Amino acid sequence: METHQITSTILQIVLILSFAKVLGEVAERLGQPSVLGELVAGVLLGASVLGWIKTSDSITLLAELGVILLLFEIGLESDIGDFLKVGACATAVAVTGVAGPFAAGYGICLLLGLNHTVSIFVGATLTATSIGITARTLKDLGASRSREAQIIIGAAVADDIIGLVILAIITGIAQGTGMTLWPAVRTSLLAVILLAGAILASIPIAPYVLKIVNRLRTRGMLIVSAFGFCLLMAYFADRLHLATIVGAFAAGLVLARTEDQARIQVRIKPLADIFVPIFFVSLGLTVDISALNPLNPAARSTIVFVALIATVAVLFKILSGYVIPRMPVSRAVIGIGMVPRGEVGLIFASIGLSRGIITQDLYAALLAVIFITTFITPPLLKAAISKKMQTSVHQHVPSST
Amino acid sequence: METHQITSTILQIVLILSFAKVLGEVAERLGQPSVLGELVAGVLLGASVLGWIKTSDSITLLAELGVILLLFEIGLESDIGDFLKVGACATAVAVTGVAGPFAAGYGICLLLGLNHTVSIFVGATLTATSIGITARTLKDLGASRSREAQIIIGAAVADDIIGLVILAIITGIAQGTGMTLWPAVRTSLLAVILLAGAILASIPIAPYVLKIVNRLRTRGMLIVSAFGFCLLMAYFADRLHLATIVGAFAAGLVLARTEDQARIQVRIKPLADIFVPIFFVSLGLTVDISALNPLNPAARSTIVFVALIATVAVLFKILSGYVIPRMPVSRAVIGIGMVPRGEVGLIFASIGLSRGIITQDLYAALLAVIFITTFITPPLLKAAISKKMQTSVHQHVPSST
Repeated sequence: METHQITSTILQIVLILSFAKVLGEVAERLGQPSVLGELVAGVLLGASVLGWIKTSDSITLLAELGVILLLFEIGLESDIGDFLKVGACATAVAVTGVAGPFAAGYGICLLLGLNHTVSIFVGATLTATSIGITARTLKDLGASRSREAQIIIGAAVADDIIGLVILAIITGIAQGTGMTLWPAVRTSLLAVILLAGAILASIPIAPYVLKIVNRLRTRGMLIVSAFGFCLLMAYFADRLHLATIVGAFAAGLVLARTEDQARIQVRIKPLADIFVPIFFVSLGLTVDISALNPLNPAARSTIVFVALIATVAVLFKILSGYVIPRMPVSRAVIGIGMVPRGEVGLIFASIGLSRGIITQDLYAALLAVIFITTFITPPLLKAAISKKMQTSVHQHVPSST
Repeated sequence: METHQITSTILQIVLILSFAKVLGEVAERLGQPSVLGELVAGVLLGASVLGWIKTSDSITLLAELGVILLLFEIGLESDIGDFLKVGACATAVAVTGVAGPFAAGYGICLLLGLNHTVSIFVGATLTATSIGITARTLKDLGASRSREAQIIIGAAVADDIIGLVILAIITGIAQGTGMTLWPAVRTSLLAVILLAGAILASIPIAPYVLKIVNRLRTRGMLIVSAFGFCLLMAYFADRLHLATIVGAFAAGLVLARTEDQARIQVRIKPLADIFVPIFFVSLGLTVDISALNPLNPAARSTIVFVALIATVAVLFKILSGYVIPRMPVSRAVIGIGMVPRGEVGLIFASIGLSRGIITQDLYAALLAVIFITTFITPPLLKAAISKKMQTSVHQHVPSST
């Protein structure tokens, strides 16, 4: 890397952080979570508006570190027991949140005259929730330790595991080898067992390791060890074909049970403060708003298609929140929290694209649907949480009114 | 960047941080500054030993952020007034520290039968001090706020400005256009004026900006603003053809005068803890120890040459510390602090290489000299500081003995 390239990347980081913070503040003042401002900052800096920033390997890495730190932080302030308690609920939400959008997407495509295989790919693209946006919005709203948050995050982890199975199925279809359900299920089960094993093994070991770490003389041992463990678990999850953030979250859960939890949390925060916005601005960077210009007649039929699929994608994820049995939680918050789709959906779509099953236009339309689910979540979630808080004030503190 | 590439970079970061911390701790236990362990960690991970890590754009960026954060942190704990007070001393050290090694390197090369132009390039390569190693070693030893540290850092900044002039001169020689001294001096003066202007303008503005920043609602505003300002000044310095770390140091000096200084310092520390070691491991990564294998007969004459040049390079920088008039400082500490050479010397050498003035072998030899100055400094500095402290204990606290 030439010195020139490094300094131009440094300038890009300055631009990303300034735009993120200014537009994040504007979003807050407009009563929205600041993450929405960061997404818009990315759109503005990206190719379709200002064109000031082109994503590079380095920016992509910093963004990935951002979302890893976000989930690590959330894990760090969570209790693993709480997640196990809501495990059944979370699984139910995940399963319905995969089945509903898949069936609806598949059905609509068939009705619109698309063939069976294409319809399967569109349906599959709508299945996997991408937890980044929701996790961040809940954090912005101070609700990341709520019961709803636990169910959403648990469901997102389950989603990621189900995603492994779906990936195997659609890869089989794309390669014409047919569905190979059993090996896929085996891979997923193995991933779950190994990840759970890593967590269970780390919980008793971590305090001893930290005791040694705290005895060492070199500066910054605690933060480097914690961050290193987080990255190692992220890498491990990736090797199991799970998302890196699932590993980072697991690392957070493990360290949350140690005596050093508070000290790690204080030290991780400035890192997260800097890197997390880079992730959300990067998400915005990839949006090409010109593709959905309503003044362009060619785009109009695409817009109708996108609107239809997006509606289905949003509604059927929201519905997944309502499978939860009677429990003092807001089903709307949970359903909305499951709405955002992200890279997993894109991976499914791009497998279809590379095999010629999905056309370039259809791919662009699915990309637009994913962005809509991303942008719509922060305001919807904010509204649902405000409503929930009003209701619970009326329910629990009737004397104060 | 493919997901696969990102996760392999993440694994590399884990390796870099673990090796850095383990070998840094070993160095400490052996009574050496931990930075020496990090350099060795880099050599071990690099191509000539384990070969586990190849530098990539992303690792280079993280390393650059590391050295930027190091100098920012040092600026943040410094007082600009102290630097102005030692300005004359620092300039004297810088000028003699450039002139001495240049003259000695040039002379030796002529004696060894190399021609005039080649000798100029070798001499020029030995001129510029690279402050990273010294800054870090002083920090490891808790001496980064000493008078000696102020003089060394001031001299390194002056060195960087003199380096601009040398760069222009040797570029002129390389291109056969002859020496163009006046435009080079003009560029340097302009750089000094603009950088000083940026510092002077920022000092009164910074408190107001921080007052606004502290009133904002979005999370992490203070750290992001401080880090953003640091990167912006680093970029600005680069645009003036100065080192990015000079800009980062200046940004630190500016923020050191604000009320938020302590709060910024606490938040920058975890970032520096993680990124600074990446820089020093990266330095080690580029070392190819096989080039200096004494069992290889072809390498023997190179070894003699390298030893000769390295001796001159070290001695004549140490001598520059002794130009300081009577002052209660350790001249040895200052001289040793000026010993490390780095990227600026390499830039000079590579200009000669690209124009065919310097041969591939000579370039490798100069690279070895630069690494020797880098590795020799932490132990020498540690010894000199220990000696200084013994002496000053005897001088100032005679009653306690």
